[in-house]
Order: sequence, then C-alpha cells, then structure tokens
Amino acid sequence: MTRVNGSIPDQLVDVLLPDGRRADLTLRDGRIAAIDDHQPGVESISHGANVIRCSGALVLPALVDGHCHLDKTFLGAPWQPHSVAGSLRERIADEKALRTRVGVPVAERATALVNRMVSLGTGHARSHVDIDPEAGLTGLHALLEVRAAVRDRIDIQLVAFPQSGVVTAPGVADLLDAALADGADLIGGLDPAGFDGDVDGQLDVVFGLADRHGAGIDIHLHDGGTLGAGQLRAIADRTRALGLAGKVTVSHAYALGQLDGAELDRTATALAAAGVAIMTNGPAGTMPPVLRLRDHGVRVFAGSDNIRDAWWPYGTADMLERATIIGLQGGLMTDDDLGYAASLITDSAASVLGLTDYGLRPGCRADLVLVAASGIPEAVAAHPQRLWVLHRGRVVAAGAAADRPPAY
Amino acid sequence: MTRVNGSIPDQLVDVLLPDGRRADLTLRDGRIAAIDDHQPGVESISHGANVIRCSGALVLPALVDGHCHLDKTFLGAPWQPHSVAGSLRERIADEKALRTRVGVPVAERATALVNRMVSLGTGHARSHVDIDPEAGLTGLHALLEVRAAVRDRIDIQLVAFPQSGVVTAPGVADLLDAALADGADLIGGLDPAGFDGDVDGQLDVVFGLADRHGAGIDIHLHDGGTLGAGQLRAIADRTRALGLAGKVTVSHAYALGQLDGAELDRTATALAAAGVAIMTNGPAGTMPPVLRLRDHGVRVFAGSDNIRDAWWPYGTADMLERATIIGLQGGLMTDDDLGYAASLITDSAASVLGLTDYGLRPGCRADLVLVAASGIPEAVAAHPQRLWVLHRGRVVAAGAAADRPPAY
Repeated sequence: MTRVNGSIPDQLVDVLLPDGRRADLTLRDGRIAAIDDHQPGVESISHGANVIRCSGALVLPALVDGHCHLDKTFLGAPWQPHSVAGSLRERIADEKALRTRVGVPVAERATALVNRMVSLGTGHARSHVDIDPEAGLTGLHALLEVRAAVRDRIDIQLVAFPQSGVVTAPGVADLLDAALADGADLIGGLDPAGFDGDVDGQLDVVFGLADRHGAGIDIHLHDGGTLGAGQLRAIADRTRALGLAGKVTVSHAYALGQLDGAELDRTATALAAAGVAIMTNGPAGTMPPVLRLRDHGVRVFAGSDNIRDAWWPYGTADMLERATIIGLQGGLMTDDDLGYAASLITDSAASVLGLTDYGLRPGCRADLVLVAASGIPEAVAAHPQRLWVLHRGRVVAAGAAADRPPAY
Repeated sequence: MTRVNGSIPDQLVDVLLPDGRRADLTLRDGRIAAIDDHQPGVESISHGANVIRCSGALVLPALVDGHCHLDKTFLGAPWQPHSVAGSLRERIADEKALRTRVGVPVAERATALVNRMVSLGTGHARSHVDIDPEAGLTGLHALLEVRAAVRDRIDIQLVAFPQSGVVTAPGVADLLDAALADGADLIGGLDPAGFDGDVDGQLDVVFGLADRHGAGIDIHLHDGGTLGAGQLRAIADRTRALGLAGKVTVSHAYALGQLDGAELDRTATALAAAGVAIMTNGPAGTMPPVLRLRDHGVRVFAGSDNIRDAWWPYGTADMLERATIIGLQGGLMTDDDLGYAASLITDSAASVLGLTDYGLRPGCRADLVLVAASGIPEAVAAHPQRLWVLHRGRVVAAGAAADRPPAY
C-alpha cells in the first residue's frame, strides 16, 4: 500500500459504495464534488491528477466516537494496572490519585489517544472533560489546545463534565459556567439523583447554563431501574419544555436495560417525543435495548467511553470494533441489524453531534475511511484494517495500523 | 518490518518475557533451546546465524482456539447475510440449506479460516465437525485433508460433533464410531436433554465411544438453568466413575451463568472434583461466572465458537480479542484478572488440549507469537497486531495483518 499521508487526492478511483455500486469519488476543496460510476479501464479525470486507486475498498463516512474522555486516558504513559475500588465516590477519588501519579501531562496522553483515533478512521469525537473543584479548568484548557493542534485531522466537541457532582461540589456550577465561556461546546451532568441527591437542583444548573450559553447537554446517567427511569423522563420533560429537541443526550442510561416492558415503553416514548438521544458503549448486562429504542423512534448513538484509564483497562478506540461489541450485546445479527450498528457510529452519531455536511453525497465534507470489506455488514463484523483515512479531503492515515512502528 | 515468512530463525533477540525480563530465545529443532537475559550490544550467538531482532516485543506461547467450527465458516465465500430462524432445530435445518447454497467447498472455506487463525498467532485449535445423517463423514474427511495440508502452520484437533443429535438422529451413533476410527480425536455431544430428550441415552453413546476409542469428550451444552446443571453433574459423575479426569469438556455450559448461588457451588464443586473443563466464548448474558469457577478449581478455557457462519455473522478468529470479549463480560479488570483472561487462550486451553510441551521454557515447542505490548495485561486489552508468528520454530506469519493484500 502506498504511504500517502498528507496528500490531497483529486479522486478516489474504484471505491465500493455502501449500496454496492463501484464508483469514482471526485474531491475538491475538502468536499465530495462528484460521485460517478466507476468504469474499469476508463480514466475519468485529467492526466496528472492526484489519484488513489482503491481497488474496490469500501468507503464509509468518517467514524464518529460519540463519547470519550480524552483527559482520562493513560495512553502515552506506561501501562497502569487497574485498581479495585468500591463505590462511585471511591473510584472518583482513586482516579484523581492515579492521574496525579501517572506523571505524563493531559495534553500528551490525549494526543496519543487522538492519534490512535485518527488512524482508525474516527473523524469526529465528543469528549467529556472533568471539571471539578481540584482540577478546575486545567483539563479543559489542555484539551482546547489539543483540539486546536489536531483540527486538521479530527473534529472534537468538548463537554464540561462535573465528574465530582454539581450541587454537592463547591464552586462547580461557576466552573461549568466558565468552561462554557472558555470554549466547551456542551454542558454535562452526573447522576442527578444517585450522585448529587438532588435531581431538580442539578438539572436547574445544567439546563440553566445550556440556555445561557446556547450549549448542548450531555448527561452521564448510571442510576439504574426506576430511579434512572424517573430522571430520564424528567430530562425529557425539561427538554420538551425548553424546545431543546436534538440538543440533549443522556449517556449510558443503564436504567433502560433494566426496566420492565411498560415502564420501558413509557420512558422510551417520552425520550422520542422530546428528541433526547441515548449514547451507549455496549456495556455487559446494562446496555439499553437498542432495537426496541429504535422501534420507539429514540435516536441512539455510540461511543468508546473510557479508553485504558482509571475506570477500566480496556478500549482500543476502534469504533468498528465498538459496533461489534454493541452488536454482540444487543443480538444484532441480520444485515439490517448490522447496518443499524454501523449507523450508531456514523449517521446517527453525526446527527446528534449536529454535523450538517456529513455523509457520502456530493457537497458533503470529504471525511472518509476506506476498509477491506464487501459492505457495511462485513465492515462491522470483521472491523478490518483501515486502508485510508481522509479528513477534509486530506489523507491523514494510510495503512496506519500496518506501517506504524510498534508502540512499545 | 521484515517479511520473513518461512524462515527458521536460530534466535529471537530482545524479546520481552511475560515476567518483564528482556531475553534472547535460542531456537533449535523447532523448540526453545535456551532463554538468556538480553544484554544490549552483546551478540550472544555466532555470526551468520539467522536472527530476528524483536526490539522488546512481548513473546507469548502460541494462542489456542479451544472451540471452533472450521466446516461451518463462510470465510472464503462471498458475504452471506444472516437468516433469522426460530428454534434450535429450525436453525440447524436453515444452516444445512445455507451451506449447500454457498457453493464454496468445505476445504476451501476452512482453509481461509485457518489462514486467518495462523496470521493472528493461533497455533493450536480444536474444531468440531458436523456428523449427521445427511453429511455423514464428508465434513470430517475434508477437514482431515485440511489438517494434513496445514500441519506445518497449526495443529488441529477434531471433534466428531452430532449437530443433529445422537439418539434421535438415525445412524449417527455408527457415524460417530466411524469418525473416531477415521481420525477424529474426540467425540462430541449436543444437549442430551434439550435436543435428544434422553440424557442417559446420549451419554451412553458418547462415553461408550470415548472408552472404545480412547478418545476425549467435548459436549455442547446450551440447556440452561437447572436442566443444564443436572446434565453437568451427570457428566461429572460419569467422568469420575470412568477415571476420565482431564479428558472431558463441556462447551458453553450457559446454565452456569443462570444458577443461584447454592446450585452453582454444588455444580462447580462436582465439575472440579471430576476434572471436567468448561469452554466459553464469552456470550452476552449467559457466560459462566469464570472467576467463581476459577475459585472452585474448575478449569476454564476459551474458543471462538462460530466465525462468520450460519449461526452469526461475527467472529474474527483473534483469540486476544476473544480474551477482551470474555474480560468485558466477566468484569476482568485487574492485571491478575487480565492474566487469567490470557490463560484461557494459552496455558489453560493448552492443558485441556493435552499439549505437553507448551509454554515459554527450554524444551517447549517454539510455537510463539510476538506482539507490541508492555505485558500480558496490555496484550489482552489492546489485542494489538501480531508481529511474528512461529510454529515449530518456523516463521508462519510476519506482520501478516499489515502486508496481506486486502481480502475484497
């Protein structure tokens, strides 16, 4: 495979489109200018043009990682054994100690993770960043710099995430306000009932700040069963009342995986009606029932969540592998199901992130990834090597997994 | 990376051992002859020797896939959409139709899968092969030929598997007898209660044939709850009575993931005392509680199970990825846990397969795989690219994932 990192091709010749057609993609000014049927032996572009011959590789729009924590990863640092901690509060305290001990600065670790994401075809990511009384805005400022430094290779949204609570953590409401003023795109939240013990108190702050800054909302909700379901409906109520359809996400929403049929239906109906999206990373045992949510019209999308950090040692940043993990948890088996799994890491996630020129149509941004697969179903099930990755029309990875020197 | 496929190195210089030491491995006659501390700058072997410089890559003994179905895979054939079928009997009928339609012969598909396994560092595999009234011994004979053809790259055990039942399928007992006479290494079984409706009837045939041929036993048991638990104890009873400790496996044993504490303890105690091993591929929802089984002294090992066939579209044949799937299902988080996950695809599986000269000690067979990882925990969690794979001292894959031409 040719190493063409940094090049700006005029055309991708002989790609396989998800609908099964073989096509030539003409690129111009970082966008898809035209999609023409590929005619073997016929050169449809002027001589001397910069062309990548794709030999039938499947082209997908750039993958989207809808939920990650760039500030938490230990990538870029020596391996950190996982510590066993008890309650959520203990784990949060444990994480702060570990992240201090690891020694490598946030920016360096986040960049190591971003590099891996790019090499795996992720073109858009939504990262939460801890805002708490100890860290203040340090993590946010580091990630704002990383975002600027990598903007030619990946687009990053930042969520100001109150990992240590809102109502119960002194000064955090003001810090979140400052974070949004400094460049965070969304306001986060954390288990309003289970962590802060004050659903209205936390949601007042979160929705209030979102309103003041015109920011989106993305709330971590681990609270299970009826406790979680009640909060999902409370979030849906506020979203509808404030006309924020499409701007609000609940991440994890484990409760949806634990409800009986009637309460699940009622909660899913409320989420769909309010336009609240659900993010899952496919956790064992507690994954929301994604096909049932789809049938209710709830928009679901996917993210890696933690990638090799204090929360767990797993995570490869590979969103096609993530689609397999979700598919195995959710029993997604048919080609239609696998297409749905793919949508969680492409179209659906792009829609939640508000990307307006995303996709495989003329005019869309040329954020693309090519893989060796016969179609979308195989791309998910086999999550094969990424052959080329383009961002705004520029090749940002080419056979990266192949040619990259070992990372030890 | 140098392409050195087929070469027979005298030494692997500067490998990282799982215990953290850097070492030089001297290989001779397909075995590990010596393991010496690596001394940077000092050449410990005569000039002109064939040496692979490993630059600190982690060396593991060859991975073991303890349960696969080489005859079922659609690899090597065009992508086959998954069909939705109902009961187990319907799915079995559906599979027969699909495998007829696919057109590509068993040997060709099995070889495609074997090639993938080898490139991913799997040096030993136990494959079940369908023996039923329609197929007879056709699949077995095809796999016997494949096994002979690939024996320089991977060792394969074959289980005569009554996919359509034993007692309820006319002539299958005789076919299983013939299969063992023709070269199958083990006798299989299938849900004696749930499928055949005759626990003693099926187990009489299975244990009788094992005794007559001196063959091992590996029984598929999907039956859940107390129905499955009763059969596990019945199998343990027979194993103990016949002195077959270490020769009997129950594959899947979903029941163990569904029992209440007391019956789980009772069943696990019986399995441990009888020396019956349990194979899991880490299914969502029904995985046996592996850490608890470990505490009871039950030997557990892992396999891929189906790899892109009529049963499901998933499966990459990557046993390190399989260890991650099991680890995520089982909550294996600490370095000790990840080491346990690794044992399921290395030592423990090798022990169940009866491999006597397996491991990283002088005298062991030089069936080795090298990966870019800082140790066993990272090798599991990151399941990184395989750098070199050796079988009986010969390089059988080198940067295979990298240099292999796209498979479309």
